[in-house]
Amino acid sequence: MKGVTVWFTGLSGSGKSTLAEALEKELRRRDCNVEILDGDIVRTNLSKGLGFSKEDRDINIRRIGFVCDLLTRNGVVAIAAAISPYQAIRDENRKMIGEFVEVYCECPLEVLAERDVKGLYKKAMAGEIKNFTGVSDPYEAPEQPEVTIHSGSEPQETSLQRILRTLELMGYIPPDPDAAQIPPEEEEEIREKLKRLGHL
Amino acid sequence: MKGVTVWFTGLSGSGKSTLAEALEKELRRRDCNVEILDGDIVRTNLSKGLGFSKEDRDINIRRIGFVCDLLTRNGVVAIAAAISPYQAIRDENRKMIGEFVEVYCECPLEVLAERDVKGLYKKAMAGEIKNFTGVSDPYEAPEQPEVTIHSGSEPQETSLQRILRTLELMGYIPPDPDAAQIPPEEEEEIREKLKRLGHL
Repeated sequence: MKGVTVWFTGLSGSGKSTLAEALEKELRRRDCNVEILDGDIVRTNLSKGLGFSKEDRDINIRRIGFVCDLLTRNGVVAIAAAISPYQAIRDENRKMIGEFVEVYCECPLEVLAERDVKGLYKKAMAGEIKNFTGVSDPYEAPEQPEVTIHSGSEPQETSLQRILRTLELMGYIPPDPDAAQIPPEEEEEIREKLKRLGHL
Repeated sequence: MKGVTVWFTGLSGSGKSTLAEALEKELRRRDCNVEILDGDIVRTNLSKGLGFSKEDRDINIRRIGFVCDLLTRNGVVAIAAAISPYQAIRDENRKMIGEFVEVYCECPLEVLAERDVKGLYKKAMAGEIKNFTGVSDPYEAPEQPEVTIHSGSEPQETSLQRILRTLELMGYIPPDPDAAQIPPEEEEEIREKLKRLGHL
């Protein structure tokens, strides 16, 4: 198969890593070559020493893009899961990689703050944490993501099926006749979106 | 095919990048998936900001190893070309990646200094450049490389054929009936070495 980069973007706690892992598992079941580049793991292996200034964030996201590109052009489904707050850098990666599917994990701040066991959102809202994306640091939501996930209000399985169906329709993964069928209105919605973006 | 990391190590100017490119070209001709991770390119894309202290060199080599590992386990021939002066870090990468072929580009300092158009070796020898590997910074030659290249005294084609034959015998690339045959005594030498290292 052709490789592709599936790029998860969204605030901390919006479900990027969890969904990325569920996607990885399903793709392995379908015998795809797949690798996850998770923001936290990458910060250990590729970006130790970088901080959270705009400049350092940009470098970090470009590095993930560089590695995703190497994998993608060798037939791998490279799954990136990183906050990646800036549209311009995500677009830079999209342009470089070419085969690129952006998945926006949307979740309201109130829900994130409520779910947050470490209380980081509350601390950031109280002004105790600087450079906290979505509170004291910018987050630019994707303008034209291939997939939008509402992790505050829909079951993970629904989100996963939407991503899988998008990848199937774009020709990046083989359809699986045994997989759960998604509802016809959802199928229609996905097709409409991909047509609008010029992918179908 | 199974992936593998071909790790070129040697002093600056010892022919790592040139040989790596010749190897890449031949492997593409044989329809292998192949990527080069050249020290200089990597310093731009993965390691900007790192210097040449032992610590920074180690981080740089570990990062190249991390990316080689991702590629190798997805069936790619990942070619690393970096001075990589320390045995311990090369061994760390070997252990992590598993499928690992170390190519030592050996070349006497005098030859390197003579060939060096930028005059860096002479400057380093005159004490004008600090942390210059082989002169004012350590270089630990590999203890048990799969291949040794004598770039000061043998034609590049000879070196390339030795690497290719090693990769063929180890089962990483398909033999090419149209390729130039290497002399029988060289074939014998390669086999003996691979047996000694436990690869055959």
